[in-house]
Amino acid sequence: MATALIILAAGEGSRMLSDAPKVLHELAGAPLLAHAIASGSALEPERVVVVTGHGSEQVAAAAREIDPDIRIAVQSEQLGTGHAVAQATAEMDGFTGDVVVLYGDTPLIRPETLAQVQAARETGADLVVLGFDAADPARYGRLVADGDTLERIVEYKDATEAERAITLCNSGIMLADATRMLDWIGRLGNDNASGEYYLTDIVEIARADGAQARVVTCPEAETLGVNTRADLAYAEAAFQARARGEALDNGVTLTAPETVFFAADTVIGRDAVIEPNVVFGSGVTVETGARIRAFSHLEGCHVARGAVVGPYARLRPGAELAEGAKIGNFVEVKNALIAEGAKVNHLSYIGDAEIGAAANIGAGTITCNYDGVFKHKTRIGSRAFIGSNTMLVAPVTIGNDAMTGCGSVVTEDVPDEALAIARSRQVTKPGLAKRMMDRLKALKAKQKKDG
Amino acid sequence: MATALIILAAGEGSRMLSDAPKVLHELAGAPLLAHAIASGSALEPERVVVVTGHGSEQVAAAAREIDPDIRIAVQSEQLGTGHAVAQATAEMDGFTGDVVVLYGDTPLIRPETLAQVQAARETGADLVVLGFDAADPARYGRLVADGDTLERIVEYKDATEAERAITLCNSGIMLADATRMLDWIGRLGNDNASGEYYLTDIVEIARADGAQARVVTCPEAETLGVNTRADLAYAEAAFQARARGEALDNGVTLTAPETVFFAADTVIGRDAVIEPNVVFGSGVTVETGARIRAFSHLEGCHVARGAVVGPYARLRPGAELAEGAKIGNFVEVKNALIAEGAKVNHLSYIGDAEIGAAANIGAGTITCNYDGVFKHKTRIGSRAFIGSNTMLVAPVTIGNDAMTGCGSVVTEDVPDEALAIARSRQVTKPGLAKRMMDRLKALKAKQKKDG
Amino acid sequence: MATALIILAAGEGSRMLSDAPKVLHELAGAPLLAHAIASGSALEPERVVVVTGHGSEQVAAAAREIDPDIRIAVQSEQLGTGHAVAQATAEMDGFTGDVVVLYGDTPLIRPETLAQVQAARETGADLVVLGFDAADPARYGRLVADGDTLERIVEYKDATEAERAITLCNSGIMLADATRMLDWIGRLGNDNASGEYYLTDIVEIARADGAQARVVTCPEAETLGVNTRADLAYAEAAFQARARGEALDNGVTLTAPETVFFAADTVIGRDAVIEPNVVFGSGVTVETGARIRAFSHLEGCHVARGAVVGPYARLRPGAELAEGAKIGNFVEVKNALIAEGAKVNHLSYIGDAEIGAAANIGAGTITCNYDGVFKHKTRIGSRAFIGSNTMLVAPVTIGNDAMTGCGSVVTEDVPDEALAIARSRQVTKPGLAKRMMDRLKALKAKQKKDG
Repeated sequence: MATALIILAAGEGSRMLSDAPKVLHELAGAPLLAHAIASGSALEPERVVVVTGHGSEQVAAAAREIDPDIRIAVQSEQLGTGHAVAQATAEMDGFTGDVVVLYGDTPLIRPETLAQVQAARETGADLVVLGFDAADPARYGRLVADGDTLERIVEYKDATEAERAITLCNSGIMLADATRMLDWIGRLGNDNASGEYYLTDIVEIARADGAQARVVTCPEAETLGVNTRADLAYAEAAFQARARGEALDNGVTLTAPETVFFAADTVIGRDAVIEPNVVFGSGVTVETGARIRAFSHLEGCHVARGAVVGPYARLRPGAELAEGAKIGNFVEVKNALIAEGAKVNHLSYIGDAEIGAAANIGAGTITCNYDGVFKHKTRIGSRAFIGSNTMLVAPVTIGNDAMTGCGSVVTEDVPDEALAIARSRQVTKPGLAKRMMDRLKALKAKQKKDG
Repeated sequence: MATALIILAAGEGSRMLSDAPKVLHELAGAPLLAHAIASGSALEPERVVVVTGHGSEQVAAAAREIDPDIRIAVQSEQLGTGHAVAQATAEMDGFTGDVVVLYGDTPLIRPETLAQVQAARETGADLVVLGFDAADPARYGRLVADGDTLERIVEYKDATEAERAITLCNSGIMLADATRMLDWIGRLGNDNASGEYYLTDIVEIARADGAQARVVTCPEAETLGVNTRADLAYAEAAFQARARGEALDNGVTLTAPETVFFAADTVIGRDAVIEPNVVFGSGVTVETGARIRAFSHLEGCHVARGAVVGPYARLRPGAELAEGAKIGNFVEVKNALIAEGAKVNHLSYIGDAEIGAAANIGAGTITCNYDGVFKHKTRIGSRAFIGSNTMLVAPVTIGNDAMTGCGSVVTEDVPDEALAIARSRQVTKPGLAKRMMDRLKALKAKQKKDG
Repeated sequence: MATALIILAAGEGSRMLSDAPKVLHELAGAPLLAHAIASGSALEPERVVVVTGHGSEQVAAAAREIDPDIRIAVQSEQLGTGHAVAQATAEMDGFTGDVVVLYGDTPLIRPETLAQVQAARETGADLVVLGFDAADPARYGRLVADGDTLERIVEYKDATEAERAITLCNSGIMLADATRMLDWIGRLGNDNASGEYYLTDIVEIARADGAQARVVTCPEAETLGVNTRADLAYAEAAFQARARGEALDNGVTLTAPETVFFAADTVIGRDAVIEPNVVFGSGVTVETGARIRAFSHLEGCHVARGAVVGPYARLRPGAELAEGAKIGNFVEVKNALIAEGAKVNHLSYIGDAEIGAAANIGAGTITCNYDGVFKHKTRIGSRAFIGSNTMLVAPVTIGNDAMTGCGSVVTEDVPDEALAIARSRQVTKPGLAKRMMDRLKALKAKQKKDG
């Protein structure tokens, strides 16, 4: 059956103390909203509607950046979760199938959990609500259920003593046929203390309609909603703990798992070794047997098998390391192919470049790729030997087996097997160092004396 | 009422296994003593007396560096806490008001707690003692109290079984009228097993005088005293946990709070983002919306709103980043103003400099600020474009919209809009790279053969 | 009495999901096998036999690298622990004395614990088994004992309800006279569900022989066996916690112990200070009073008293810092002596070098030590002043009190007190920067217009 997502993302998040809308705060390098969408995308939705409110334009822009097909509904007034879902009605027009209501500030729901929600629907439930068994139910809404049959959701403040003793709580996530859900929502009232339309009230409306409501549960940790910066840090820690555990389970060595930070899309191959204090931004693939040494920072790059990165290496988007390549300390690589067995071991900047197989790039080498307006490309051939502190003024090509003298500024192409050098002759002036230093020291002594 | 502090800082700290006096070991980048003084300074004391003993000169020097008005008393022999306070008598001469006794090795007392101690005095108590409810009272002195009325302090070894069951323990911190306290201390005896004068005994003397003694309590964590390196690490962890929590509460994003280290005076604005593995030394202010990327290290610097620092950026004292400035990887900045929107993105050293607005500093740029004796200044104009690997031999000035060729050593000023270049012509020698490499390889082969 | 070790290292470790044999996975920078051998070496064994199986050649090579005298036995089929020990028989030929059976995947046994096992033997036991009191005995083998007299070892699956209630569990480690142990093992049967020869069964055989079997216990943490990457990470954490605690106990300040990573052989002197985020590889000695600043990475190096390293310093094998030397940020040092008070403060690569006392090495200095085939040496005299961005083309010698001009490529020796300079004259072209930039911008505008 076709599925749609309605993602509620209208909240201000005033407890974040932020100018940014809550759902745009980042977890594992991506907005909270992106995590909610990613969870839901496991259901292969035909349509996704994000309901925005506070910071609507920013949120809409972020949503469209994630997926340009996402539809945006705007909730101008904050009149409750039922009201929020109702704002999606126009954007749901013409859709036939099931709809899942998700939350932009609830980033840790696993796809497997949503699959269970869907499975419950497929085995006969008309309305499925995701619940969790709370260690401390506090002020969560309670799910009044008989086995997995949901009778109603009761808000904490309306709950009797007996109901408050229930530990099965409401995550807010629901699934039903889209047409029926919107119909039920259309019949919600706001005759309560807050004067709001509660999505939770549709359970009773649905049951009155003869619909079967069912509870599916997941671990409490998945339902964590982010309301404060501390919540955000806590969610990040939970995300990282999960990612670290998965890496270990997949045969990756993490010397000190608690010091490694993953993005949602990091892929690390079996028998890779990740040393302490490594940060992965989005878009990184590390193949089997590669080693990422301590204090490295990788974003948008690919590290082939057997390559060694770091310590203190920074790989930026477009860095592509072939097998056995080596990037050493205090080296930055951006938008550059480092071919098989090539080495950039020390204190270099390699941007917009192709480095040939088995090339050796000396310490302090810089590809001068920017002229203030345009970026240009540097090409270095196989087995080339780039002397220390060579400036490669792009666009420039160094041939196979070519060499540059250390300290050279290379502005013209260097053919295969040629040596390029741009260097002033050394002049040595006997005794001058001592005379200069003596003069400076005398000057300083005089200054001191003169006060 | 006027307040004075007497801070006991005479202990050797033999369990630290250190050549340094205990109170000079550092917590959050400042000596323990400085933390104790900072706590007490919230009472706006008119006079501060530090009682030194072991390493007296070093401790006195450190105290005067914190505040040149601090008075020093010396306890030559270690005859107990009462004896220690008595040594401050001469330095208290002429002071009228209350005195608080604090401890140089107890760095986590919050100013709010001392304010409560003071408030108790202001509401009628003659002697106020700070206690805490111990999870494991172990061998702490016990406070025998009736409600908040303190009857006496009993040392563990002198306590009855019933008294040992008390969990309300003595922090050692006391407040009373200075004249009365010194009078009570003058009447202390040392007729006990240790032959020492215990400050705690003044409670009974005071009560015999008709004085009212009162207990104020604080969380046990605040009273942590440092006696070992493990204690010091534990206190650091407690300090950092508090600082991280406060940052989150103030609307700062800490991606991984447990990896960020603050100094006591770090100020971070709302909506700033601090990525994993960032260390703040003393004297750092980061304004709202700035981002401090992973693996950055900041000391004595100011980062204005919207600026981006790191990853792997080191800002040293005097680094002043204006709005939207950007300091990138493997860049060190010291005593330098980086104006609005200026960028130093890669592998550079910028010291004793002014970088104009929107200037672009190429990779590998170094301000050569030191001639072996003196430091000199580099000035770079707005929108200047400094080519990669430019050496700026200070004192030197680069004009607005000026440019330097990459690899140039710039020793003379460059006017506005001018280009400065200091470069040798590239010479390319066909086939020479191959011949050189072949010769080296042949030599190596010969060496191997010759063994 | 002479002692021998038999170390079982034949397991595949299929749950590691690795191409490498289990015992070659690294803990604290050394293979698990090396840790087991190091524990056992405290008994000063006359002979060490490693029983290999999966990946036999790799394991044997690793063992011989640890100690070339280690003997290798091969267990071709995996027929149980008793069978594994039996494979060592030929390699034990001619040995008289006691033998201890250890496990290559059990790296945390402390030498003190093995000393206790040995002591039990010396006080009359014929067979000593190391046990531990398990918090959750789960499926461990149980030690049926009367006081410290061991009656038998019962496998979980064969245990009665009463036996399963026993929490004293089997670590697998055993000690006995070598001849007797091999005799007992020769009498093992495999008449059990697995069809394997269990080493544990020798307890009953030994007792039937009239031998006295005794239990010695150790904390459960020491007996941790590594079967998964998560186990490996857990063992690493346990190792590091122990190492950090020992450093604190020895009078070292660790600002944030949980962020410092030690190797098994790291030696840190009293009153050294280790800031957050420091990684020690193998072979590091840091003397008293030295400071290792944040984000530093040290391997195979020696830091003398009062030296300061980092932040962001990388010391590689052969780095030797004398008293008061200083290595600053983004500096790599390899196979180099840095004499008393010499400073390399910024962005430099110093490899295969000797830097004289009180020399000052400017930012961006590189020792060009590699010509593509050979490595050459750089010598710098005392009090020499190396200007920023000097390329020292080795082999080259800079004299005492000599100086190099910044940006110079130095290819010839520089005598004492001389100044060497290799620099092109600065040419300044008025207005050219602006004209060039205007032209580039116009080109870009045109490109945009042309689409």
